[in-house]
Amino acid sequence: MGVIRIAQAQINSVVGDFEGNSLKIKDMIDQARSLGADLVTFPELALCGYPPEDLLLKRGFLEDNNFFLQALKPACENITAIIGFADSDGGEVFNAAALISDSKLVAVYHKIELPNYGVFDEKRYFNSDCECVLFEIDGIRISLTICEDIWIKGSLTRTCAVENGAQVVVNISASPFHAGKMAVRKDIIADFASTTKSIMFFNNLVGGQDELVFDGGSLAMDPSGSVLSAAKRFEEDLLLTELELPEGRSTAAWNTEGPIPKLRKNPHKPHAPFLNRIEPELTRIQEIHDALVLGTRDYVTKNGFRKVVIGLSGGIDSALTAALAVEALGADHVIGVTMPSQYTSSETLSDAELVAANLGIRLITVHLGEIFAAYLNSLKDAFGEGKLGVEAENLQARIRGNILMALSNRCGWLVLTTGNKSETAVGYCTLYGDMAGGFAVIKDVPKTVVYQLSEYVNTKAGQAVIPETTIQRAPSADLRPDQKDEDSLPPYSVLDPLIEAYVEEDQSPDMITGADPKIIWDVVKMVDVNEYKRRQAPPGVKITPKAFGRDRRLPITNRYLNSRKRSSS
Amino acid sequence: MGVIRIAQAQINSVVGDFEGNSLKIKDMIDQARSLGADLVTFPELALCGYPPEDLLLKRGFLEDNNFFLQALKPACENITAIIGFADSDGGEVFNAAALISDSKLVAVYHKIELPNYGVFDEKRYFNSDCECVLFEIDGIRISLTICEDIWIKGSLTRTCAVENGAQVVVNISASPFHAGKMAVRKDIIADFASTTKSIMFFNNLVGGQDELVFDGGSLAMDPSGSVLSAAKRFEEDLLLTELELPEGRSTAAWNTEGPIPKLRKNPHKPHAPFLNRIEPELTRIQEIHDALVLGTRDYVTKNGFRKVVIGLSGGIDSALTAALAVEALGADHVIGVTMPSQYTSSETLSDAELVAANLGIRLITVHLGEIFAAYLNSLKDAFGEGKLGVEAENLQARIRGNILMALSNRCGWLVLTTGNKSETAVGYCTLYGDMAGGFAVIKDVPKTVVYQLSEYVNTKAGQAVIPETTIQRAPSADLRPDQKDEDSLPPYSVLDPLIEAYVEEDQSPDMITGADPKIIWDVVKMVDVNEYKRRQAPPGVKITPKAFGRDRRLPITNRYLNSRKRSSS
Repeated sequence: MGVIRIAQAQINSVVGDFEGNSLKIKDMIDQARSLGADLVTFPELALCGYPPEDLLLKRGFLEDNNFFLQALKPACENITAIIGFADSDGGEVFNAAALISDSKLVAVYHKIELPNYGVFDEKRYFNSDCECVLFEIDGIRISLTICEDIWIKGSLTRTCAVENGAQVVVNISASPFHAGKMAVRKDIIADFASTTKSIMFFNNLVGGQDELVFDGGSLAMDPSGSVLSAAKRFEEDLLLTELELPEGRSTAAWNTEGPIPKLRKNPHKPHAPFLNRIEPELTRIQEIHDALVLGTRDYVTKNGFRKVVIGLSGGIDSALTAALAVEALGADHVIGVTMPSQYTSSETLSDAELVAANLGIRLITVHLGEIFAAYLNSLKDAFGEGKLGVEAENLQARIRGNILMALSNRCGWLVLTTGNKSETAVGYCTLYGDMAGGFAVIKDVPKTVVYQLSEYVNTKAGQAVIPETTIQRAPSADLRPDQKDEDSLPPYSVLDPLIEAYVEEDQSPDMITGADPKIIWDVVKMVDVNEYKRRQAPPGVKITPKAFGRDRRLPITNRYLNSRKRSSS
Repeated sequence: MGVIRIAQAQINSVVGDFEGNSLKIKDMIDQARSLGADLVTFPELALCGYPPEDLLLKRGFLEDNNFFLQALKPACENITAIIGFADSDGGEVFNAAALISDSKLVAVYHKIELPNYGVFDEKRYFNSDCECVLFEIDGIRISLTICEDIWIKGSLTRTCAVENGAQVVVNISASPFHAGKMAVRKDIIADFASTTKSIMFFNNLVGGQDELVFDGGSLAMDPSGSVLSAAKRFEEDLLLTELELPEGRSTAAWNTEGPIPKLRKNPHKPHAPFLNRIEPELTRIQEIHDALVLGTRDYVTKNGFRKVVIGLSGGIDSALTAALAVEALGADHVIGVTMPSQYTSSETLSDAELVAANLGIRLITVHLGEIFAAYLNSLKDAFGEGKLGVEAENLQARIRGNILMALSNRCGWLVLTTGNKSETAVGYCTLYGDMAGGFAVIKDVPKTVVYQLSEYVNTKAGQAVIPETTIQRAPSADLRPDQKDEDSLPPYSVLDPLIEAYVEEDQSPDMITGADPKIIWDVVKMVDVNEYKRRQAPPGVKITPKAFGRDRRLPITNRYLNSRKRSSS
């Protein structure tokens, strides 16, 4: 029987921060060694961060990957490590995993399956390879894979594991979050474990990177689909798993370069008894909440900001955004600004004040009235005759945007915007107004989920941080007297499923059900014609299977639905 | 000897406009037939427009491609046509060319080489195929290729042409413009013609689509590299070429599905004598100018706008933008707005008025003073003690942005922004201020080229449309007293080559020469930290080998250069 301890280092790399990431990797190697681990694994591209995008087109960036990888070798004394990095060889670039054992680089595995859909552009950067890498520790045979390699049914990696008699398959990943993704992953991992009869080690990245959040949740799973150990979600973690297995059958090496190397065990084994750890699973709303908090914290801090500023309207979106920001950064790092206009009711104003008080954040008040009057007066001649319409509404929204940006410029605070996915989808938002800011926390959260998250925040806090009056009041942009969202839009309970069908599932409007066809076509039209607004929106955390941004790439100049509607009518 | 006439229809498709594109295709087929053409070709994806991006993920869009293609068959009576469309078969999608002859669909060719770099994402959408399509007319053997197929040295398409004894190779393309691209294309075409000993027919798309301009320039070239005929650039065209060739050797078909079909000639041959036409070549500045005009016209009109509004500062960027807009849309469709502040000199103000007068466009004046004062008064408490800095400059820029957007909202005019590539690169521009608008005409034009274009515009007009005082005056944002761009930036003659090296050529800062290393690192740092601004910028015409936008995909959260600089210092 062989016995090995495998440590999965679920780290939060920063894209391009070779020094910082190297320090983190060294520290985890040291911890793993002292815990008696024989093998320590790191996520996909852990060394350079994921996704590095067009940094991969810079020669210096590729050279630095190799330089910092070589520099990590001495840190691997008495232990074996698997470290994700970008390997380059002549003109070819690979998404790679280095196998370093006892301070020597033993092998480099190149990812075979490259995802090029959704948020992924790996065929833009990487070459695909077709050679397996396996090794043995204490007679136990281990095969290497990277992320997508286990997601493709007919992949060579599956055959590799089977033909080479792998007992353990390590999969290092940078698998981005969306709600429900963990269950999808478990199915994929279980399928690979069962068809290859191996124990799977899925080592995921954790942390926020622009639009993406990597949610961790690294785990080990046996061929029957049982979870042997599971790491935390949305936090760095070092997950230790001990395996006792019969020694592998000594099959000949198949599709590998040379014989399968036999690597040394960690000679220092602590004698403390050891139990594999399984962290509890999260509910859907918990994981969405945690993703928003981590995504916001990492965007703000990784970009060098210390404080954020948020326009508090008295509505539920800004209240939720502020509550999430306080969880991400602490109350001292969040500033609220209330900007009442003549259309702001006393209830919404006092709700804004209440939210700030509940969260313990500083509240600044700036009145719109004088500025709005100055615009109207200065524009009098240019506007000419005729009643004011949407231009007056947008003007107020843009004055608010300018005030927040002026505070941002003066004080160095990052502006967080507060728009949700429902508004962003149908363009019920003002470019350079409420869309002005550096990060859009709930950009991918449908309004119906905004309510669920607000209830969750209140339950978690044990008090109505977000006032019940805010949750109960009919949504309104408060830009003209008695304005309500439902004057312009279907109720959110109708709208959100339509957006899911059209945006996330790419259903054809004439196949979508759940509302009057006229409403469906109106919504679809609104989604299409507002592509130009979204193109100028700040990034925000992806929490659904398809978010606006890199995930969904529609042309602005696009006559498709017009053409289709004409020809079908 | 065989004699054929080939018509290349260089059309301007609109993405998603199946009805409109079909009408255009039918019309060109009719024209080609009446001119005695035996074969008429259309650009890559001519039926659905290029690039359709994620529309290709919609099942309905793929079905409509097939539906509208079938509907075109009857239009091909007595003629052979090659029409680009998106073909789908089960779960697979192909970038395809339909071969229709005498109203029958004879074959469908699937693109073999899929570009997935720069502005291209074809591996996101298309499957690659590996089968050749050839046909004969009057004993002349013709092979089909699509765009990238002829750009790859070792491509199967080259072997196909040679092994099958192709005498003519048709290449339907959607090859986007950058300055100097035509020469690159000619080299590629000449190389393919020479190695395959065939006559090449390169049929390019024309027109603007968001960031891209397709510049036409379709041509026929013989194996010696001589151009037999060449179409207009930046305009729709129907290019007719007559060939007289010995009948092909009847080699067996290689790597094709079945025997090579022999197609009927057009029975109606006009008796008029015929000479191949070669349109003159354009200079570098001419082609950049024409690209900007076409890109602007198509963005505005394809998106349903009739008029545009431009802030005229009295500087050269806004003057050039206005001049280009007038060429694109006509003076009646362009409105200038001058928005003087307390820092606006009387010279710049009178230059703005002069530009408007020279171009014959309406000029609106809106003063900033009262609005700016109202902001400062309303923000007094929030700002607290301390001198005003960049927040006051940005505030003025944002007031101007708001005024333009208010006019846009009230009057339905599209705002054109006026920032150039040099400013956009180093972030010398204000988000939601001068960056606010729907289309950024000169976004990819370096400042040094702005000067060249302005001289060209004046020479072309035979008068100083853009005043000499504007061209001579030192560039300034006019946001504080005596402000000059060179207070914050190196001279543009130094800056522009640095931007070219770092942004377009991805050179490492420590390899770049031409300035003091400190200046180089400062510029590189400015480019990097302003990625967040560019992410929220409107689209604009790509005229360089690498434009900001889909062409250059850098993370916002990116510590690369900081890390690199630390470790090298």
